[in-house]
Amino acid sequence: MVGSRTGWVEADYVPCPADLAGLSSGATRFAIDGHPAAILPGVSCRNPEGHADVMRGEEVQILGAGRLTAIGDALVCIPGTHSKWARLEGGALTGFRTFVTGELYELLRRRSLVGALAEGDGFDPAAFGQGVDYGTRAPLAHAVFSARADVLTGGMAAAAVSSYLSGLLIGAELAGRPEAGGAEVVLLAAGVLAERYRAAFEVVGLPFRPIDAEAATIGGLALAARELWPALAQGLAG
Amino acid sequence: MVGSRTGWVEADYVPCPADLAGLSSGATRFAIDGHPAAILPGVSCRNPEGHADVMRGEEVQILGAGRLTAIGDALVCIPGTHSKWARLEGGALTGFRTFVTGELYELLRRRSLVGALAEGDGFDPAAFGQGVDYGTRAPLAHAVFSARADVLTGGMAAAAVSSYLSGLLIGAELAGRPEAGGAEVVLLAAGVLAERYRAAFEVVGLPFRPIDAEAATIGGLALAARELWPALAQGLAG
Repeated sequence: MVGSRTGWVEADYVPCPADLAGLSSGATRFAIDGHPAAILPGVSCRNPEGHADVMRGEEVQILGAGRLTAIGDALVCIPGTHSKWARLEGGALTGFRTFVTGELYELLRRRSLVGALAEGDGFDPAAFGQGVDYGTRAPLAHAVFSARADVLTGGMAAAAVSSYLSGLLIGAELAGRPEAGGAEVVLLAAGVLAERYRAAFEVVGLPFRPIDAEAATIGGLALAARELWPALAQGLAG
Repeated sequence: MVGSRTGWVEADYVPCPADLAGLSSGATRFAIDGHPAAILPGVSCRNPEGHADVMRGEEVQILGAGRLTAIGDALVCIPGTHSKWARLEGGALTGFRTFVTGELYELLRRRSLVGALAEGDGFDPAAFGQGVDYGTRAPLAHAVFSARADVLTGGMAAAAVSSYLSGLLIGAELAGRPEAGGAEVVLLAAGVLAERYRAAFEVVGLPFRPIDAEAATIGGLALAARELWPALAQGLAG
């Protein structure tokens, strides 16, 4: 990511609560061949236990989705390598929780003793559903091993391991999500991840509104650009 | 392991409840250059949710420790790549729960984005204790990310990440352990793992009896040999 420690320029994190105006005023501005450029900051928060959480990029999607659909109050889920569950209140991002779901899946599927027993990555809806269900109830480091034990004792087909593991991790994430405080749950995703999370939400009976992540990203960036360069935005509008 | 699917001869799993006599009668017997040899079976159980669990090797340690110390009723913790928490009742192994704690630690420390921020593997008792504490309370896939976020926002030294991560995983394991049903908790371990788990047990205030894993293994194997070859054992005794 261009604004990360290993990117072009390290951009700061602004603390929650954060809105688009705050992101824009915290931007790192520079020029590329004479053209104005800006890197938006990430967002940080601190949980009640005193540990930090950070995001970089998702804040634009979340605030973009909020503005575009006029949702001011929601619990927004953005699945991914590092899934985010963010609380949007009065149009501002007030807090969030990250889960290393996608990264753990890759590590367990490709490099673990459990993954070594898996055959292929075809989607098995029944195994996925079983995984989601057990993942919401069992300690994660234990649940993961059940895939290996079930295969070794003949209770699970090796071809089902990948889907079961994916379900376990998503189930554990759903069980650990922050409180929505009565607000609606928004699933901000696209492609295969959107399909998987939709299926998982249905397994646990969690109502949600799906929003396309790509549209939210473009919308959020356009809104941020208007905040960053109001004159330019006026010129384009005129 | 010689009795695993990729070992010399695949030995079965016997179901819980299991004792040393049961293990011996389920042994796979063969000869090596005319000398009698046997591979003991592993042990399997099924949890209330219908998923299997398996162990191979730890059952000898657990039953050996029980017989040697005359403990018939305990919850036994054997830390490792795949940690086991086993219930010993009336001298028999009646059930257990596996956690992929050690394997997850290696994957996260060596191959993840969180581990990439860590510097070295020196033991930091304070960071370890914080990890144990947070690991008992937070969803694991979220807690893991806090190491990265704390480093990025200046709240944790990169040199503390390894200990903190280790603490998180052990804390999550402790929080997810099976019920002891009033029995004492036994820590069956040796070396660095014994030290780490002792420290973790103290953080959560869990009383336990430490037993050396090596002595338990030798004791268990000797007892199993007597069951397998009673005449030989009598000859040695005479």
